[in-house]
Order: sequence, then structure tokens, then C-alpha cells
Amino acid sequence: MNQTLKGFRDFGPEIMTIRSEAISRVRKIFKKYGFEELQTPALEYQEVLLGKYGEEAEKLMYLFNDPGGRPVGMKYDLTVPLARYVAQNQNTPMPFKRFQIQPVWRADKPQKGRYREFYQCDIDTVGSSSPLSDAEILAVISEVLEDAFGFSKFSIKINSRPVLFEAMKVAQIKKPNYNTVIQSIDKLDKKTRDDVEQELVQKGVSKKQIKAVFKAISNAQPDDYLQEVMDMAKQMKVKKLEFIPTLARGLDYYTGPIFETVVDKPNIGSITGGGRYDKLLGELGGPDLPAVGTTIGLDRAVDVITELELWNDLQIGTKVLVTIFDKKLLDKSLETANLLRDKNINITVFPDPKTDLKRQLKYADKKQIPYVVVIGPDEAKDNKVRLKNMNSGKQETINLQELVAKLA
Amino acid sequence: MNQTLKGFRDFGPEIMTIRSEAISRVRKIFKKYGFEELQTPALEYQEVLLGKYGEEAEKLMYLFNDPGGRPVGMKYDLTVPLARYVAQNQNTPMPFKRFQIQPVWRADKPQKGRYREFYQCDIDTVGSSSPLSDAEILAVISEVLEDAFGFSKFSIKINSRPVLFEAMKVAQIKKPNYNTVIQSIDKLDKKTRDDVEQELVQKGVSKKQIKAVFKAISNAQPDDYLQEVMDMAKQMKVKKLEFIPTLARGLDYYTGPIFETVVDKPNIGSITGGGRYDKLLGELGGPDLPAVGTTIGLDRAVDVITELELWNDLQIGTKVLVTIFDKKLLDKSLETANLLRDKNINITVFPDPKTDLKRQLKYADKKQIPYVVVIGPDEAKDNKVRLKNMNSGKQETINLQELVAKLA
Repeated sequence: MNQTLKGFRDFGPEIMTIRSEAISRVRKIFKKYGFEELQTPALEYQEVLLGKYGEEAEKLMYLFNDPGGRPVGMKYDLTVPLARYVAQNQNTPMPFKRFQIQPVWRADKPQKGRYREFYQCDIDTVGSSSPLSDAEILAVISEVLEDAFGFSKFSIKINSRPVLFEAMKVAQIKKPNYNTVIQSIDKLDKKTRDDVEQELVQKGVSKKQIKAVFKAISNAQPDDYLQEVMDMAKQMKVKKLEFIPTLARGLDYYTGPIFETVVDKPNIGSITGGGRYDKLLGELGGPDLPAVGTTIGLDRAVDVITELELWNDLQIGTKVLVTIFDKKLLDKSLETANLLRDKNINITVFPDPKTDLKRQLKYADKKQIPYVVVIGPDEAKDNKVRLKNMNSGKQETINLQELVAKLA
Repeated sequence: MNQTLKGFRDFGPEIMTIRSEAISRVRKIFKKYGFEELQTPALEYQEVLLGKYGEEAEKLMYLFNDPGGRPVGMKYDLTVPLARYVAQNQNTPMPFKRFQIQPVWRADKPQKGRYREFYQCDIDTVGSSSPLSDAEILAVISEVLEDAFGFSKFSIKINSRPVLFEAMKVAQIKKPNYNTVIQSIDKLDKKTRDDVEQELVQKGVSKKQIKAVFKAISNAQPDDYLQEVMDMAKQMKVKKLEFIPTLARGLDYYTGPIFETVVDKPNIGSITGGGRYDKLLGELGGPDLPAVGTTIGLDRAVDVITELELWNDLQIGTKVLVTIFDKKLLDKSLETANLLRDKNINITVFPDPKTDLKRQLKYADKKQIPYVVVIGPDEAKDNKVRLKNMNSGKQETINLQELVAKLA
């Protein structure tokens, strides 16, 4: 069975060009904001992974014994490895602003846009309780989506757990029920208000209380900390930031601001998700340090880029095919190839001098290489080359200087 | 047990800066030569992996059942996934010049320089029997080592299997014994001639034949194909190419030229290894296509770069710490930070305005950030900033334009 494993993907040349470019742009912005790169192994001891995410998550983990009999597992996210790293490197100066761009593995049900191996791009600031750290995460998100990816229609939704808790208190929900009510409220972006109300009824919340909850939520205002974060974000030129008092994010571990990004089109779920989690690192077995961060989902971002054709000007694959007329003229082709590469132009030389020119041109066509260089006896004699534009079909005979100028 | 898994490594900010830079430089050169990127999943069906590398290798594989009960394994190299990919994508135009930069996993005995997760950078040209394809691989190796990594003292050793076979024939070794004799000859770069002779004696080769083998090897000359490869490589500006008739490379699957690179210092084994393997893809379950390629060992290359301190001018981590004098002057610091980032300077803002300046400077010191910007009340009033060079201790009060000019 010569097949890619079920639920997994190969990334061929076309999509890899976009993925690599996206990662390189993201990395550049992360570094501009002072985040530093960390990579952790694919495998961790099971002790590091288990008891951290809940039973449902553990069913999705790739757990096994390594050839030495150690119980190990493939990493499920980048947060647990961060907690483990910080615990293990107690001398790390704080705040520790780290980024990490690596695949994680979850044996989820495969479906459109969901794969068992996917890349996360995480940034987290560990060891700072300052609202400036939250604002900085928002600034990175804004710059990555707008400048690196080229998204124009998106919004960064923000809320905070204390704001939600305050609304629960105002609506006189009992404290142990806060999270279950909040979980239903969180669905208002996907379900109708009626559906959410019905879900709350099923959870045993009275009609009167439901009304009170909706009222409290719609009257909710950012608290002091959140307001400070939003003000600072504005100073850091974050646009498209919207206070959405119904936003809750599924995970219970957030303790302060929470944020996620959605694009207007396509309908693909959130592209980023994060928030402040001041207790989590301690709970994960790390030191008891405050932290704030976000994940940027590379795979979804690349889906948006390709669906909206945002990077149509990006050169996919090689720009120029240098053909070989025959063995006698091989030297000329190699010289031209050397020259173009010296000018940092991505070229490929057709390797076989015995293949006729027609087939070489067909190869360029199949591979969608936009330019072909031919050096036949006439061109060689005049120290010129023939340049064919494969899209327009236009050909011109030019000297090497002109060739470089055209292609650079 | 909050520990990195045995035999595995975390890559912290310092080493990641070098690794990321190395990968980005290598990728750029691969693309310049017309190679296109492929990524395959960490996991493959066991059917894809097993029966390909021999029993010894299989003992080192991470094999297990996924949560759905499928027998899977982590990839052991990048060649078997290439064969699987080509078999699965039969419409790929040939020649297919692919590169792949990904980790592979082998449960080898951990020792200095050997880890259970390590990166391979592979380039292979599939579907071409032209010596130009072999030469092109050598050109990429030469440019990566010299231009991307900055190595000056290395040699690219080249030989070919047919040259070795011819020497065996001349020495009247029986055909079934070719490979066992060649395997001993291959050790001449690590063992003395006496040791190798003794090994051959133990393998049952007569003294007379041993003498004949050494004579044949020392008289060996490149065959026509190898000579053509070497000539073309020269035309492609490959330097440091040495014909070494004792070079054999361990693997039996090579069918033509074989090559590897060693650096003079440190004593670290080969940095690259590859050759032509015209039968392997078919044997691995792929289509029956000729191929030539090389692996570049990223981890060893990075070891050389760090041991020889070749990239000492590379900025590790963040270049500038923008401090915050107090909450009132936060705006000024954020404005300066925005400006520097707009000029693509990697900066970090100390997030907590309540932390006194002395501790902020200490943070820069611990993190080896070379420049610190301070904007106190005096500087703010004059629209200036104080720039401290943390290495020299020198401070100067300058305007924003001067600051950008100094740091860009």
C-alpha cells in the first residue's frame, strides 16, 4: 500500500512554496517583536503529556513505547512542551518571550481543513503580568494577518474571563455554573440565539436567568485591565480589534483577556486563538508563572491565502528553464545558468542534452515554468540567447546583460 | 519527570537562530538550482517503511499502532517517503528535482553528535540518467558548504561504484565478494592500512589478492561517466572536488558516482553523503526511475559552524531592549518601538513599567541584548532617546533619526 497515511498529507512543491513563505514571514515578525525561537522534540515522555488536557484529548494522542520501552507520545500542542522547557530551564531570564513553529499530532476524525498533523505557530510571553504583554500579542497577530498574510477583511475579537464572570454575577448565576453557562454563550457566533437559549434550558437554567444573562452580557463593558490592553494595542497600531462580550473560547484555563481572529471569507473557523493563562504553567508542571500568548493556525491561514488567491504574484516553482540545444552547446547553457544563479534567479537546467528541444519546452509547459532560455548555434555565434515567455508565447533574441535585466 | 526525552534535544533561542538561518540559506540555494520543496508526514504506514533498510535499521524504528489501530512508524529517512510520493503521483513531470528539509527519527544509541531526532536536508533528481544531474548535486553541495555555511577547509570526495567494481575485477576478486571487500576498503579513512588488511584476511581474502586489490585501487582512474560528471562539475564552478578511489560509502544501493564531504576540522564525520541510485526507487516500491541525490546533515553542519565560530556576526536574539521609564512615559517608549520595528529592527519592549530601570538593564545584560534605549523625562522633553551600548558601556543622547541610523 503505497499511500500517504490516512488523515495525513504530503505537501507538494506548489503548496510548499506558500507554506515556506508564510512561515518565513511569520518568523520575521515574531523576531521583530523580540520573540525568540524554541523547538522541542516530536516525542515527549507520557508523564509530560498525560493528565494535562483531559480524557477526550488523550484519546487523540499518539502514545506508544519507544524501542527502549519508554512510554512516549507525540506532542499534542506547543504549550505543554513550553511548560516542560521552562520547568527544566529555571535560569531563563524572565519575561521569556518565545515563539515556536512546529507540527503537532492529533488523531482527530479527518475532515475538510482538519488533519492529524498540522503546524502551530505559537508566541507566548512567560513571566509578565503586564497588560503590555497582552497588547504585544495582539500587535503581532495584527501585523501577521495584515502584512505577512495580506488579509484585509478580518477582525480580532477580544473579551476577558473576568468580564464574563462579572456578567454571570450580575445575572445571579451560581459560581459553579459560570463555566457551563459561558460555554453556551460562546456558541452565539455559530448558533442562533434561540438554539443557545434552548441549550441553556436543557442545562437547567431558568428562563428568567437566561434573560438576565443576555442582558448582563449585552451591557458588559471591558474591565480596567482589558481596557488598558485595548488602549495599548491601539498605540501599537492594532486595527480591527473588537470587544465581543459573548466571546468565551472553549478552554477553561484562561484567566484574563481572551482573543481570537476570524476572517470574513472563507468560512473556516478562527485563524488565531489565545489569551492570558496565569495559572496554567504551574498546573502543567511548570513553574508558577503568569503567561499570555496565541496560536496562529498555519494550515488555515494557508487555506485562506490560496482560496482568496492573495499571493498570486508569488513565483511558484522555478522561474526559468535553461534548455540544452545539443552536447556541443552544453557549455553555453551552463555558462548562462551560472550567470543567472549568480544573480539569485531560480533556474533549472534541462539535464539531458539528448532530449530534443520540443520535449524540453513541453517540460517547461507542464511544470508551468514561465520563461525558457534557448541557446542554439546562431545565438551562440552572436553571444546571445533566445528568451521565450511561455505565457505570451513571445520570443526575443537578446544578449546576456539584457537577459539578466529581464529576469531579475 | 519534567525532562526532555532521552536521546532528544530542545533547541533554545541561541542555537535556533543558527539553525533557522542555516535552513533558510540552504533552501535559497536549493531553489536557485531549480529544486522544489516537498514535505511528507512524520508518520507512514509500516508497509511503506519495512523491508527497505534491513533488519538492523528496523530495530531503530519508532513503530506502533495509531489510535485507530493502524500499524505506523515515524520516518527513518527522506528517501523512502520520496519513493512513496513518486509512486503515488505518477503524473509528476520528469525529471523531478525535489528538496526536503525535515526531521527523521532513529532510536540509535545516544552519543556526542548523534541524536534520535535529527534534520536531513535532501536533494534528489528523479528520472534523469544524465551526468549533468550528478554534477548539479555536487554544485549545490559546493555552494551550500562554501557560501551558505562559510566553510573554507573541506573536500568533496568522489568515486563511483563501477570504478570500484572494475578494481575488484582487475584484482581478480570473485563477483559475490565485491561488496564485502569494498566495505573494508571504505574504512581506509578511519583505520590504518594494516588494520584493513587484517580485516580482509579475516574475511578470507588471500594476502596475494589483498596486494592486488590495493594495487588496482591505487591505479584506478575515473571511468567515462565519472569523468564527465567531474568535468561538468568544474564548469559549474565546483571546487574542492577530489577523486578518492577508496571511497565506497556504506550503502550497497548506489549504482554510479558516490560522494561525501568532510571538513578538516572538527573531526565530526561526513557532512554530506550521496550518489546515484538507479535501481533503488523501484526496489522501494516506487517507479523504476534513475535518481541521484545527497543528504546534507544539518545538525553536523551546525556543529561545525558553532565550533569554528563561523557566524559570529549573526545577531543572536534581539538587538535592542526598549525600556520603560515609568507609566507616564510609556507612550514615548511605544512610539520609539513602533518606529524601530517599522525599520525592520528586532526589538523587545520591557513589558512592566513598574520595574525599575536598573532591573530592566540587568535583563538586557542577562539576555545579551547589545543595545538599550532609555527615554526618561529629560530625553522625552527634547524628543530624544538615550542609547546604551551594553558591550562598551558607552551612552549617547540622540534623536530618533540618529537612533534608526545607528541600529539599522
